Amino acid sequence: MATYAELSKEELQQKKEQLTKLYKEWQGKGLTLNMARGKPSAEQLDLSIGLLNNIVEEMDVVREEKNIDLRNYGGLEGINGARELLATMLEVEPEDILIYGNSSLNMMFDTVSRAWVKGILGNTPWGKLDKVKFLCPTPGYDRHFAICEYFGIEMIPVEMHEDGPDMDVIEKLVSEDESIKGIFCVPKFSNPQGIVYSDEVVRRFANLNPKAKDFRIFWDNAYCVHYLYDEIKILNIIEETRKTGKEDMVFEFCSTSKVSFAGAGISGMAASEANRKDALASMTVQTIGHDKVNQLRHAIFFERGKKVAEHMKKHAELLRPRFEIVINALEKNLGGKGIGTWGNPKGGYFITFESMEGCATRIVQLAKECGVVMTGAGAPFPYHKDPHDSVIRIAPSYPSREELREAAEIFTICVRLASVEKLLGEI
Amino acid sequence: MATYAELSKEELQQKKEQLTKLYKEWQGKGLTLNMARGKPSAEQLDLSIGLLNNIVEEMDVVREEKNIDLRNYGGLEGINGARELLATMLEVEPEDILIYGNSSLNMMFDTVSRAWVKGILGNTPWGKLDKVKFLCPTPGYDRHFAICEYFGIEMIPVEMHEDGPDMDVIEKLVSEDESIKGIFCVPKFSNPQGIVYSDEVVRRFANLNPKAKDFRIFWDNAYCVHYLYDEIKILNIIEETRKTGKEDMVFEFCSTSKVSFAGAGISGMAASEANRKDALASMTVQTIGHDKVNQLRHAIFFERGKKVAEHMKKHAELLRPRFEIVINALEKNLGGKGIGTWGNPKGGYFITFESMEGCATRIVQLAKECGVVMTGAGAPFPYHKDPHDSVIRIAPSYPSREELREAAEIFTICVRLASVEKLLGEI
Repeated sequence: MATYAELSKEELQQKKEQLTKLYKEWQGKGLTLNMARGKPSAEQLDLSIGLLNNIVEEMDVVREEKNIDLRNYGGLEGINGARELLATMLEVEPEDILIYGNSSLNMMFDTVSRAWVKGILGNTPWGKLDKVKFLCPTPGYDRHFAICEYFGIEMIPVEMHEDGPDMDVIEKLVSEDESIKGIFCVPKFSNPQGIVYSDEVVRRFANLNPKAKDFRIFWDNAYCVHYLYDEIKILNIIEETRKTGKEDMVFEFCSTSKVSFAGAGISGMAASEANRKDALASMTVQTIGHDKVNQLRHAIFFERGKKVAEHMKKHAELLRPRFEIVINALEKNLGGKGIGTWGNPKGGYFITFESMEGCATRIVQLAKECGVVMTGAGAPFPYHKDPHDSVIRIAPSYPSREELREAAEIFTICVRLASVEKLLGEI
Repeated sequence: MATYAELSKEELQQKKEQLTKLYKEWQGKGLTLNMARGKPSAEQLDLSIGLLNNIVEEMDVVREEKNIDLRNYGGLEGINGARELLATMLEVEPEDILIYGNSSLNMMFDTVSRAWVKGILGNTPWGKLDKVKFLCPTPGYDRHFAICEYFGIEMIPVEMHEDGPDMDVIEKLVSEDESIKGIFCVPKFSNPQGIVYSDEVVRRFANLNPKAKDFRIFWDNAYCVHYLYDEIKILNIIEETRKTGKEDMVFEFCSTSKVSFAGAGISGMAASEANRKDALASMTVQTIGHDKVNQLRHAIFFERGKKVAEHMKKHAELLRPRFEIVINALEKNLGGKGIGTWGNPKGGYFITFESMEGCATRIVQLAKECGVVMTGAGAPFPYHKDPHDSVIRIAPSYPSREELREAAEIFTICVRLASVEKLLGEI
């Protein structure tokens, strides 16, 4: 089979007509589909419905353990059971963990905010500096970039390789430029590519020699236990930085948003003792403490971590077929045509599609006009600027399988149509 | 009966011996009592134990209402039922309300933080200004002062009168000084004095003419429904500022911390549409949204507000006897002695005792050494500096009645002892 690039103008015109006909047929159905949002499906949420049950009896037990009434004030660092749960997920010790509310994004935002207003461990508040820069492995998570943009942090894109971000660039830049204060990473099943950082990459992170004393790695381990197939391990950044004596360089985040309830889970941060103390000194001014009753619910439901692996297998059973529907549609309809590539992730929430240069915006537009909402082209890039206008993030988790089959089919039609337009010089 | 000031040196010496004997007897008992913390008692928390029951069935209803799955992402402004609940408490419309997490303190802190980093409604971020000042009605709530101190906001104390803070001073200062950006108020049953702002005071607030366009009243209506006896109304600041066309000047806060669970309630802010939009623009970067399942629990348990008044009567039944134990002990042991005055609040969580000048620190120390922990002297003042060293905040809510009887008895012995020491020139 010929790739599209090998087709003559006439053949392309002919393809365009066929594809336009197909496109209009789908358009005529007036569908409303969505592959934009990395949201768990209702079936996934149902897996944790036990969280909503009566926990009054178990409550007395835990109350005793901490010698505080969990319904009352106190316990800023979180209850033991919740710290054990997140420690299990991150493979650290419970005492490494600080518990936050239902949003790890909120914890990341507040961590940057603290650095901005108060400074980290006695260093100059970032808000007092002329320039603060973050390195941004790209494509990446749009909400990380939004935090940087909010604070006026200059974002420096760093290319992603198959085993993590370009460490040569990162090592060089952080060692030379004191205004580089941080980097956001999703080390396991990265958003959006699903890339898993290699041992070498993690070790090189743990060995960084930043010029800024208050440089911090924001290690957003959002998908630490979110496998589609078998378990995949990455090196533990907390352990590795302990070996290199650089444990203050890392804040590691995680949450149960995609374990229990997306909107009503618990989140936390693993960090060195110095970093935790620094955070607590601000948190004690900011809040009366996070919801310990919800922490307790999670501690009980997941047996302080013991039940997580088994529970995540149930999520995988719901997610795996959805990922496979999309991957199969891509292979069937786009394979061998030379008009796009895509990842085949083994975990996480996204599939990344890369179109021919300059087609992503058009594909997303075509999809939208055919009833399929995709994440905006450019979203996975700092300032929403995809230099090649080629990356599209596909989120297969939320729609039903039937909806997903339709959405994936339509998406591949849009890709073919936009590619033909591109080759015809129309876009 | 003679006041202590009228006693001769010999009589004072004799009193001192008697009181010291009494004090040592109590000390010998090795008690551990606490009147420091404005925490609800376990009996109060038990009133809301129904919140922990199974709500799965009711959940489906509300899910339909908003057309979103409350367990999932989305709904940054809060669910209808929760907005109705807090709107009932604040006597505003549900659409005036933004819902936050379990801590209204967190919402206040974040509101200052937003002003600090981004500025309010397009004004210069406070963090970029040379000087930011807040007016602080004094005595006041130590955690408000802690927020100011955290951000390096200069605190200007304003005296409290029986009907609210000194409005002459406030009107003058805000109209003259553009660096005055805010004021923290607890308008109903103020912390710590239990003062209720008069209609005139509220109206004068609503008519303020601040020089700073981004001056904001942080109206912390923490005890809006927290009566010990009959309901007491204050003028509605949201309504009053609407009348004067100054609705952007107010952020009004409240929470269910002392309605449901101190550590696991919901909180919110009533504000103008412009202020809410401004807040949401930051919140959408900061968080995936607050815990909607907990919002739902509260909406169901309190029937979207209908059950609040009845529920608060049960709290009052538990709190009222505790307040009366303290007030009775003060009257019985200190009445007519000229060594202190105290308020008799009709709601809220605190009683304020004012000793002779220069005695508060000594009283708190004596109490501590006799097994009774009090809020630190100076805590209700900016920078912990009570100019007269006379104000002591008494929190009667948490101990059992029996404990409270002992603690109040000991406290009055400490007051008498410190007063005698003072009159003898020993402190």
